[in-house]
Amino acid sequence: MKSGEKVVKVYELNQIETALQQVDTVSIIEQGFVAYSNGEVVVPPVGEMIFSDPPGDVHIKYGYIKNDEYYVIKIASGFYKNQYFGIPSSDGLMLIFNQKTGELLCLLNDRGYLTNVRTAAAGAVAARHLAKDSIGRIGIIGAGLQARMQLSFLAKIVACKDVMVWGVSNEELARYKSDMEKQGFSITTCLDANEVANCSDLIVTTTPSTTPLILADAIQKGTHITAIGSDTPVKQELDSQVLAKADIVVADSISQCECRGEIFKALEAGIIGKDKICELGNVIQGKAKKRSSDEQITVADLTGVAVQDIQIAKAVYAALNSIC
Amino acid sequence: MKSGEKVVKVYELNQIETALQQVDTVSIIEQGFVAYSNGEVVVPPVGEMIFSDPPGDVHIKYGYIKNDEYYVIKIASGFYKNQYFGIPSSDGLMLIFNQKTGELLCLLNDRGYLTNVRTAAAGAVAARHLAKDSIGRIGIIGAGLQARMQLSFLAKIVACKDVMVWGVSNEELARYKSDMEKQGFSITTCLDANEVANCSDLIVTTTPSTTPLILADAIQKGTHITAIGSDTPVKQELDSQVLAKADIVVADSISQCECRGEIFKALEAGIIGKDKICELGNVIQGKAKKRSSDEQITVADLTGVAVQDIQIAKAVYAALNSIC
Repeated sequence: MKSGEKVVKVYELNQIETALQQVDTVSIIEQGFVAYSNGEVVVPPVGEMIFSDPPGDVHIKYGYIKNDEYYVIKIASGFYKNQYFGIPSSDGLMLIFNQKTGELLCLLNDRGYLTNVRTAAAGAVAARHLAKDSIGRIGIIGAGLQARMQLSFLAKIVACKDVMVWGVSNEELARYKSDMEKQGFSITTCLDANEVANCSDLIVTTTPSTTPLILADAIQKGTHITAIGSDTPVKQELDSQVLAKADIVVADSISQCECRGEIFKALEAGIIGKDKICELGNVIQGKAKKRSSDEQITVADLTGVAVQDIQIAKAVYAALNSIC
Repeated sequence: MKSGEKVVKVYELNQIETALQQVDTVSIIEQGFVAYSNGEVVVPPVGEMIFSDPPGDVHIKYGYIKNDEYYVIKIASGFYKNQYFGIPSSDGLMLIFNQKTGELLCLLNDRGYLTNVRTAAAGAVAARHLAKDSIGRIGIIGAGLQARMQLSFLAKIVACKDVMVWGVSNEELARYKSDMEKQGFSITTCLDANEVANCSDLIVTTTPSTTPLILADAIQKGTHITAIGSDTPVKQELDSQVLAKADIVVADSISQCECRGEIFKALEAGIIGKDKICELGNVIQGKAKKRSSDEQITVADLTGVAVQDIQIAKAVYAALNSIC
């Protein structure tokens, strides 16, 4: 090494997990949505590479908060045949740079974990600002990793431990029940998604479904629904009549939800108008109306915004610097 | 570190420079242009972030050769006030991933050096296929880093050591002369770019000029010109009449040169038509016509193509693996 030459700092997943224990993830994601809705965040179009043999996709998400210290570039991949090699199908990393000089500050080799965390934290933010105060039962649609993380993060916001979960098989539901009961939840499993919706007043949907799983008739007064799974123009978990029935429909990013996710589906079908949609960052800071009674139905459509990546990367980097 | 967890391999500039000594850069860049012109390379649109205070820009270039082992993402920045902090204004790195699984294989922290190398190698490729066999004098327009590297790389292709160089000041020209004479060249300096052009039969332009430096009248029969400096819709080193006067006009990428560089300027002004342009990869493999006499004038407009980054990154990675 030449004298004075800087060496890239790389942090691996176990270091990142340790650092994350010091981070109030829900608050920093909340602050990120506010900055985004206030027009303080620059998020250029997502870069994309598609592979066919084997099938895979790579997305490059990047951006910065104006007048901040950093900019962040996230690279995430999904190669769905990786299971045959015994490795996870999804992978990811984040690069943090100095916004004043362009210098690379570190590589967070989080293998996609921070994306899962920032997504789960966004669910907690939506519940904090949109769900009614007293939740009788939480309904979780899907029994995979994000279905686990959403519930874990809701525990930071909601006292309720009574949970009903839907999945496609009794086997995956049994694993979910076992895992989450260790965290102190009481889990009832169910193979009918609308029954879960009907029995719950805080619902989180976490599947990659491309056909609606939840119908409007199943939704009771007072329910809040956070839709996590649909983040493309193709995926859909909620029948669009759910959004028509809702009193308040909130997008994480209006511009993004106009072309992907549940809101896109409802707009495309002409079932709701654009005037019904408000933005989460505006709800948080009181610029858009929140729930005004325990009878109202609210829907938050979270498609994932680069400011979440920026916020989580910055917070982990600060925590790593305080540790190391 | 958890058992079995992979750790990112990072290679710093000194290791990359050592590995590069094993690489035939001109040949691998040549192969890259052929693959590009044969439609074997996937190059999505460049990602861009622009900063205002301090001014800076970041570009994300990425792509892959179909059915290859890797894909490559390059991140390059220019922060022009960095000189006040005593650090270089440009910086850059490349990430190499496994095209079959999405896994990160390594980070080449080359600080932008590999971009300079692949640009210089492209100049040598253009000269190899377009310049006449016997060169009497090389003319270099500009006296900066790329003006040095272009000449060094031409030495791999052209026997001529007689060089005339244009720069904006006698001071920078004196430094250029001193540096390049150590490499065995005989350097004449000049403050008139058209005089350099008039005295040379192989010209390389390397400046960021936004007004033409070289006029058509200065170009002698038999001359080949490689235009390196203009890689945006704004920059221009050659008066467009130079391209009109040329017998053969070659783009590194036709689609890219239709919207940036010297060819874009000439097309925009209506001075040449699209039918005059052929692509370097096709010239190399004989699918487009080469020079047919020592009287013809040829121009190569090199705006920089992601396949060059892919090729240099792959070659350095292979060399690093053979060393380490």
